[in-house]
Amino acid sequence: MRLPLRSFCIFRSVIARGQAVDVQRRGLSGAAMRLVQFRRRGEGASIRVGVEQGEGHSVVDLKAFDPSMPSTMRELLELGDKGLECAQRALASGKCVVDRADIQLLSPVTGPEKVVCVGMNYRDHCLEQNAPIPKEPIIFNKFPSAITGPYDDIILPSESQEVDWEVELAFVIGRRGKHIKEEDALSYVAGFTVANDVSARDWQMKRNGKQWLLGKTFDSFCPLGPALVTTDTVTDPHNLSIRCLVNGDTVQDSNTDQIIFKTAALVAWVSKFVTLIPGDVFLTGTPPGVGAFRKPPIFLKKGDVVECQIEQLGSIINKVV
Amino acid sequence: MRLPLRSFCIFRSVIARGQAVDVQRRGLSGAAMRLVQFRRRGEGASIRVGVEQGEGHSVVDLKAFDPSMPSTMRELLELGDKGLECAQRALASGKCVVDRADIQLLSPVTGPEKVVCVGMNYRDHCLEQNAPIPKEPIIFNKFPSAITGPYDDIILPSESQEVDWEVELAFVIGRRGKHIKEEDALSYVAGFTVANDVSARDWQMKRNGKQWLLGKTFDSFCPLGPALVTTDTVTDPHNLSIRCLVNGDTVQDSNTDQIIFKTAALVAWVSKFVTLIPGDVFLTGTPPGVGAFRKPPIFLKKGDVVECQIEQLGSIINKVV
Repeated sequence: MRLPLRSFCIFRSVIARGQAVDVQRRGLSGAAMRLVQFRRRGEGASIRVGVEQGEGHSVVDLKAFDPSMPSTMRELLELGDKGLECAQRALASGKCVVDRADIQLLSPVTGPEKVVCVGMNYRDHCLEQNAPIPKEPIIFNKFPSAITGPYDDIILPSESQEVDWEVELAFVIGRRGKHIKEEDALSYVAGFTVANDVSARDWQMKRNGKQWLLGKTFDSFCPLGPALVTTDTVTDPHNLSIRCLVNGDTVQDSNTDQIIFKTAALVAWVSKFVTLIPGDVFLTGTPPGVGAFRKPPIFLKKGDVVECQIEQLGSIINKVV
Repeated sequence: MRLPLRSFCIFRSVIARGQAVDVQRRGLSGAAMRLVQFRRRGEGASIRVGVEQGEGHSVVDLKAFDPSMPSTMRELLELGDKGLECAQRALASGKCVVDRADIQLLSPVTGPEKVVCVGMNYRDHCLEQNAPIPKEPIIFNKFPSAITGPYDDIILPSESQEVDWEVELAFVIGRRGKHIKEEDALSYVAGFTVANDVSARDWQMKRNGKQWLLGKTFDSFCPLGPALVTTDTVTDPHNLSIRCLVNGDTVQDSNTDQIIFKTAALVAWVSKFVTLIPGDVFLTGTPPGVGAFRKPPIFLKKGDVVECQIEQLGSIINKVV
């Protein structure tokens, strides 16, 4: 499957000149990119890493640009600076561009070792529940099998009657580390993306010995994307408007400045317990407006469309089926 | 690194004739094997899959026998019958044998997508706590980064003062499946092994919003091994003596017949929520005798040696450092 793409690459030469110059001006240390994973339509199961030419624009196929580059984001991140520098050269080249219409966008990370989640991490979400502000992060997780693409369906399981939405700022680890100091922590973060921490409240709150895992980890309960927006691209990840819409109605509307334990604090905290590795995904908690705390509660039903938006990062849109 | 091993293989011809014949007599459907992962001493970080010539005996190097075979257990299991049949041919050949003294045994599975754990799953362990017998399995998990080898050290974290032992019967998924029926479930299980579900009770029980994850998932908190004993090798996985010794003193001593939700029930239950894939590890709960419920409680300290034994499967021995 490599050959057709490479020849495609030779015939395409739509160069985003302005963007290429801008990327070069920022230099390699400021790796300002929107990295994606995609699959060419009709091409079967082969995953590719790409770089968006802008939010929602065409995608530069990294492996077509340099066949020595890996096919997955996790492997790309494992290469460290070498991988990101190659992605920047690919973007600047304006070569090997694939039309948006010809691809299916996947989650920007698949198969991470960990999907780390944080509970009760927005001040306004704690107020909504009359719950005290936590003194330490509350850490739980999903299995990586819950991850699904930015425009893929959320599969409503027959086992739950209380499936809820949770828009969340997510970040992805770019460098291996343990016992990371808070002041060094941001250098371990490759970038940010948007997540929906879909939650079966009946299983999370009332069953499974009150361990949240099962209610959080049904297949398709972690839509993620659309892009891994590298750290230097984001002005301030803790001052971004964050919203969730269900069938076009705004149900969550807050700002990431409400986050209690921020990116660096979470990296430092979790790395006390476990070695973090490239590709590990963190979901940083949700603002108020989830269905479970409405009066009366509202839960997702088949046919609903959930859109999670974060300023500068983009939007993921998932239909409930 | 493949060449030296292959030449090594040619010069070695210690054939376990009796065992080879026995394997052939059972036929391929009865894939009776002890599969391991190992690393040749001095060979760097390269993982290999092997087949033991008997518990604690020399190991047949699968990739040396057939270079088309993968280097990790997860990849071998993904091959399905083809991989297991090749492992049987390798064992029967008596070729490509590596001396036990020349290898470091690793956990039989590394980097699984999931480490699924079950709480309160021994009748006698529930009685010990005056706790009711659960009506449904209580499912939690560890991150795969917690897995360590059968003879590797357990690293006592400075963050916990209450690190405890838990010998457990573990099993490994061999086939992808969702919504698996209990009557079909055993055909999804590749085999059994021994685990120590090391647990920081302070973090499990008193902190992190009572979500167990952090207390269970410190690095090195999942010693596993010594071998993945294929399903057909085990007479009855739910009638095996199971013991834990700390510094030679027996602290847990029970039988897997005390397990409440057995292998097939757990596979069926968890696959309601998530797609299971080859390599997924299940820890099936611990019998009575953990340190936390002793009067007074006893916890692990540096220098302690913990041995977990299960009949027919073998023994893992881990020093606390």
